[in-house]
Amino acid sequence: MTDGPTQLLERLVQQRVTLTLKDARLLTGKLLGVDDHMNLVLDDTEETTTEITRHLGKVVLRGSNVVSLNAPKAGGRPT
Amino acid sequence: MTDGPTQLLERLVQQRVTLTLKDARLLTGKLLGVDDHMNLVLDDTEETTTEITRHLGKVVLRGSNVVSLNAPKAGGRPT
Amino acid sequence: MTDGPTQLLERLVQQRVTLTLKDARLLTGKLLGVDDHMNLVLDDTEETTTEITRHLGKVVLRGSNVVSLNAPKAGGRPT
Amino acid sequence: MTDGPTQLLERLVQQRVTLTLKDARLLTGKLLGVDDHMNLVLDDTEETTTEITRHLGKVVLRGSNVVSLNAPKAGGRPT
Amino acid sequence: MTDGPTQLLERLVQQRVTLTLKDARLLTGKLLGVDDHMNLVLDDTEETTTEITRHLGKVVLRGSNVVSLNAPKAGGRPT
Amino acid sequence: MTDGPTQLLERLVQQRVTLTLKDARLLTGKLLGVDDHMNLVLDDTEETTTEITRHLGKVVLRGSNVVSLNAPKAGGRPT
Amino acid sequence: MTDGPTQLLERLVQQRVTLTLKDARLLTGKLLGVDDHMNLVLDDTEETTTEITRHLGKVVLRGSNVVSLNAPKAGGRPT
Repeated sequence: MTDGPTQLLERLVQQRVTLTLKDARLLTGKLLGVDDHMNLVLDDTEETTTEITRHLGKVVLRGSNVVSLNAPKAGGRPT
Repeated sequence: MTDGPTQLLERLVQQRVTLTLKDARLLTGKLLGVDDHMNLVLDDTEETTTEITRHLGKVVLRGSNVVSLNAPKAGGRPT
Repeated sequence: MTDGPTQLLERLVQQRVTLTLKDARLLTGKLLGVDDHMNLVLDDTEETTTEITRHLGKVVLRGSNVVSLNAPKAGGRPT
Repeated sequence: MTDGPTQLLERLVQQRVTLTLKDARLLTGKLLGVDDHMNLVLDDTEETTTEITRHLGKVVLRGSNVVSLNAPKAGGRPT
Repeated sequence: MTDGPTQLLERLVQQRVTLTLKDARLLTGKLLGVDDHMNLVLDDTEETTTEITRHLGKVVLRGSNVVSLNAPKAGGRPT
Repeated sequence: MTDGPTQLLERLVQQRVTLTLKDARLLTGKLLGVDDHMNLVLDDTEETTTEITRHLGKVVLRGSNVVSLNAPKAGGRPT
Repeated sequence: MTDGPTQLLERLVQQRVTLTLKDARLLTGKLLGVDDHMNLVLDDTEETTTEITRHLGKVVLRGSNVVSLNAPKAGGRPT
């Protein structure tokens, strides 16, 4: 049974995920939504660079800048 | 209930948002409009780089240059 | 009432605008026309880099190289 | 008989593969799924850079950032 | 009356134009043809870099590498 | 008689070819398959950088990272 | 009479042309074929960098890496 990228992303809604962006920023937040272009909405977002961490609140990300999405609590089912 | 990128952007119209662009500029302004390519219109825009802040007035942004959009007043409902 | 990117660009025709390009050049000129790809035509164009300003006359810009367009006279109505 | 990219990727599901990304990271994990854009899901993922190796759990990768996928156990049949 | 990018390019056929490419080369030549992707054909082309000028004859340019096209004789009517 | 890119690639299946990638790696292997996006499968692949050569086994390449494909045994007919 | 990019490329088949690639390599060879994406096939190809010239035989080029194509024998008719 395969577990495709879209199905996993939808199962991850309401979970905290970490995004790696092309500009090397890491964003960690609760995944609120996703669309077909892998545009994403995060809530309670923390931005981490090599120097500092900032709290950003709600963030919309353009999918073309996302490299990967990492779900530490791997089960992928909403809590 | 998911809260997709498009729905959030439309709810943010008339609110102040901060954009991170690929060229590392930050633009803060009132979101006047958005289309399907995530092209955006801001009003009363402030451009911030590491050195200076400039007032730019009304600005049209090509979506392909937008990395992320951050809405500090997270509720996302028009004021 | 939202004010979309396309509607604003069409209202800015015949006004002077400033473009920021991906190669960091600034072009200021009278906007003569625009199409769906955000390809643009400017007239009486001035190119400004960190060093010099050159007069270029009529210029066609490929939309994929445009980062943002700034209309200092923010009203957006033809003069 | 040709053996196309899509057919091979589907045969590699449930096997460990190594991805080379545009940002030069290497990710090794069990391939859980793939779609038409070459978006991928890996499980038990190890990220290796020139300095360190980190365990990332489940990861979704945007296909546009993938350079190549390498299947060391070349047969390409599910175990 | 707006004057769109495509209309201007077609009016510039048979005139000398200067192209700025993404790799910073300047190409000056007589515009022989253009298509919907802004692929262009120039004749009697001169390539100018910061160091030297070379004569290249007939050149086909892939539109995705064109930043801007500058028509010094601004009228835009065939001579 | 023209000999298009797709026709040549199909004739090269089962032959050893050398790919130049955007990240400057050279990959030499037996071409197993190709699709319309110029995604490729190589077998018995050797990766060569300026420093070292590694054996990679079976590799799937995303076409968007391929610059050129070179078939030293120019005939282009399967052996 | 306009002379579009596609028409010229088809007329150049069987002639020697020089390609400028995004990675700054120059490839000179006999144009065997071309498709709608400006993917190209060259034969008897010579690769020139600032340092050395190598003979590559038959080469398939992905159009997205081509900047320009230069036909020194400008007539554009098959020999």
